[in-house]
Amino acid sequence: MSRQLFNPNIMNLGVPPIPHVQRAARAYDKSLGPLIDLSQAVPDYPPPASLLEALSTKAGDPAWLGYGEIEGEPVLRAAYARDLEQTHGSRLTADNVMITSGCNQAFMTAIMSIAAPGESVMLINPWYFNHQSTLSMLGINTAHVSVDASTGFLPDPDKLAAALTPDVRAIAIVSPNNPTGAAYPAELLHQIYQLCVKHDIWMILDETYQDFLPAEHGQAHDLFNENFDNHLIVLSSFSKSYCIPGHRLGVAVAGTEVLQQMVKIMDNLQICAPRAAQAALAKCMPELTNWRADNRDQINQRAATLISAMDKLPGWRIDAMGAYFAYVQHPWTNESSFDVAERLARELGVVTLPGEFFGPGQERYLRVAFANVVSEVIALLPERLSA
Amino acid sequence: MSRQLFNPNIMNLGVPPIPHVQRAARAYDKSLGPLIDLSQAVPDYPPPASLLEALSTKAGDPAWLGYGEIEGEPVLRAAYARDLEQTHGSRLTADNVMITSGCNQAFMTAIMSIAAPGESVMLINPWYFNHQSTLSMLGINTAHVSVDASTGFLPDPDKLAAALTPDVRAIAIVSPNNPTGAAYPAELLHQIYQLCVKHDIWMILDETYQDFLPAEHGQAHDLFNENFDNHLIVLSSFSKSYCIPGHRLGVAVAGTEVLQQMVKIMDNLQICAPRAAQAALAKCMPELTNWRADNRDQINQRAATLISAMDKLPGWRIDAMGAYFAYVQHPWTNESSFDVAERLARELGVVTLPGEFFGPGQERYLRVAFANVVSEVIALLPERLSA
Repeated sequence: MSRQLFNPNIMNLGVPPIPHVQRAARAYDKSLGPLIDLSQAVPDYPPPASLLEALSTKAGDPAWLGYGEIEGEPVLRAAYARDLEQTHGSRLTADNVMITSGCNQAFMTAIMSIAAPGESVMLINPWYFNHQSTLSMLGINTAHVSVDASTGFLPDPDKLAAALTPDVRAIAIVSPNNPTGAAYPAELLHQIYQLCVKHDIWMILDETYQDFLPAEHGQAHDLFNENFDNHLIVLSSFSKSYCIPGHRLGVAVAGTEVLQQMVKIMDNLQICAPRAAQAALAKCMPELTNWRADNRDQINQRAATLISAMDKLPGWRIDAMGAYFAYVQHPWTNESSFDVAERLARELGVVTLPGEFFGPGQERYLRVAFANVVSEVIALLPERLSA
Repeated sequence: MSRQLFNPNIMNLGVPPIPHVQRAARAYDKSLGPLIDLSQAVPDYPPPASLLEALSTKAGDPAWLGYGEIEGEPVLRAAYARDLEQTHGSRLTADNVMITSGCNQAFMTAIMSIAAPGESVMLINPWYFNHQSTLSMLGINTAHVSVDASTGFLPDPDKLAAALTPDVRAIAIVSPNNPTGAAYPAELLHQIYQLCVKHDIWMILDETYQDFLPAEHGQAHDLFNENFDNHLIVLSSFSKSYCIPGHRLGVAVAGTEVLQQMVKIMDNLQICAPRAAQAALAKCMPELTNWRADNRDQINQRAATLISAMDKLPGWRIDAMGAYFAYVQHPWTNESSFDVAERLARELGVVTLPGEFFGPGQERYLRVAFANVVSEVIALLPERLSA
């Protein structure tokens, strides 16, 4: 008998969703007009000119050629701590901030620091697929509680409590949510945090889409004013906020003790995040408050355009939406979302992600990253989807 | 009883070695002259001007702002495949190449693809500390075979074979070696490869220091001419060869089937390596053959300077050396290498890494990264170390 060549935890992972969908999109013949890509979350507008210039300057500066501190560049950690004061009313310092290569890496580092193989982490179904696959590849089990349109895709804290088993080390929340777009009310986040404190487990809060919270939502949460050191790790991404995903920068905010554990992981994982981009972002971040607010307004306008576009399409229904994404029911009741998404991409040139990438029971849904394209393109959807 | 807050696999890791030593170095009062830093492997010469310029240009180019292919930029994968043809006489294509954020990440991705928690990977003691800590943090056991000065710190394939247990999924080799500097003969690497084939396990070969092989060593190995798809993963780093560690670029070379597994891991780990630096390196790599050869010659000259410097120091002995590192016996028979390295850093301003970071039984050794400093500085060691 031949031995198993590969780690079964990796063998059992599906192929990464985004390239899978992009292959179908490449088969579209453009007969109905240009591709409308609502799949991978990538803002269509450029980063601010000052940031692009700083990226270039710092990358050519010998000061950033050597290895950097594992925790990240002190200038960026301090800049982000100040930024959190504005966005979250926090009073944190650079010591609470660790820089990673993107938010996926922040999630993986956070998870590894608090859960061992064989333990469990609770996700909300539908979940961000990379959260589930990261757990699987580490040999960590996924516990889950399912949500649906009846509660705006928000979990009931009592149901979370009822589903907690002794092997669960953390509850991972994404707000604003991927895939549904739903923004968790601050009060709900606080209840989930209290549940974690009560059970002495961790709350991991991924705020990748925090910059796109509708203005009327107010402050995302006040958890940073709690005594959170042993129960909260908050993650975010600079890719979406500043349109620089190719430069790979994410961030974790947490107590110093868990950050010390995460630093040990980062050292093995890649020593430090790329430095020049960290320096560039640190320089520009303080000046970009208005630029970010404008983007939020623009993206919320796109949301309004999507609502009126979908209204014109019989059988389609927006079941949740908010920051960046809408979670949309397609009209084909007997078809899997995989088949629907593939057909829409291949035949109509409309690229979305099938709900089934995001968890069990999501056959009826497509994730629509409406923030990717301008309102004029969103307005084309009724005609294109009727074709 | 309070629950355990952190993953015990991470709790049990020591603090990262390099920052630990750097703290002792900061306590040096400079009374004997400037710090001589022979600790972290960082070439002291700048990268080629063309590369620094390309890094700046590409970082300011909007073409590299979006997400890239998980496997890495096709241009860099193709450029490295061509480079391997020159250095290793291989006939590989871009399909055999995956780009990572540094070689630590390449190692972690390779290990995860082929070993699950509870299985084992064999290391050669003394080992590169991040290899051992990466295994530990993933819940993978370290098997090991110890080598010493009697065999030039090279393992005997028969002893490796005898030490293999059914849970061992791979043998990881570093050549040229970290910490000893020893370059494994091509014939020995071939024997280890054959052993892995025979036992249907993987050989993971880390060639981070390949560019500093003495010219008389000849080609590193001919393993790429084997039918290696299911038994070999070769790793390397662009940080050392091109002096750009802050830009975080490493590489894995392997069969397409195992690379498919590694791609799934990379997607969760950080989606893709930072793109602009990949584009810059792809552009410059073909022109830098002579520049790299000059560096190798310069570093081999430093090796010669170190030999004559240590000759003047009674009680000190170079037990192994080669590309980049020397593995040196210090004269204090009753002291741990931790204490010796700390005292040398703090009192004499000579920063080395204690052997005990590299495995059990290494108390008598210090790792000296002589390639870090020019010959004129190496020549100062006899006076400084006698102080």
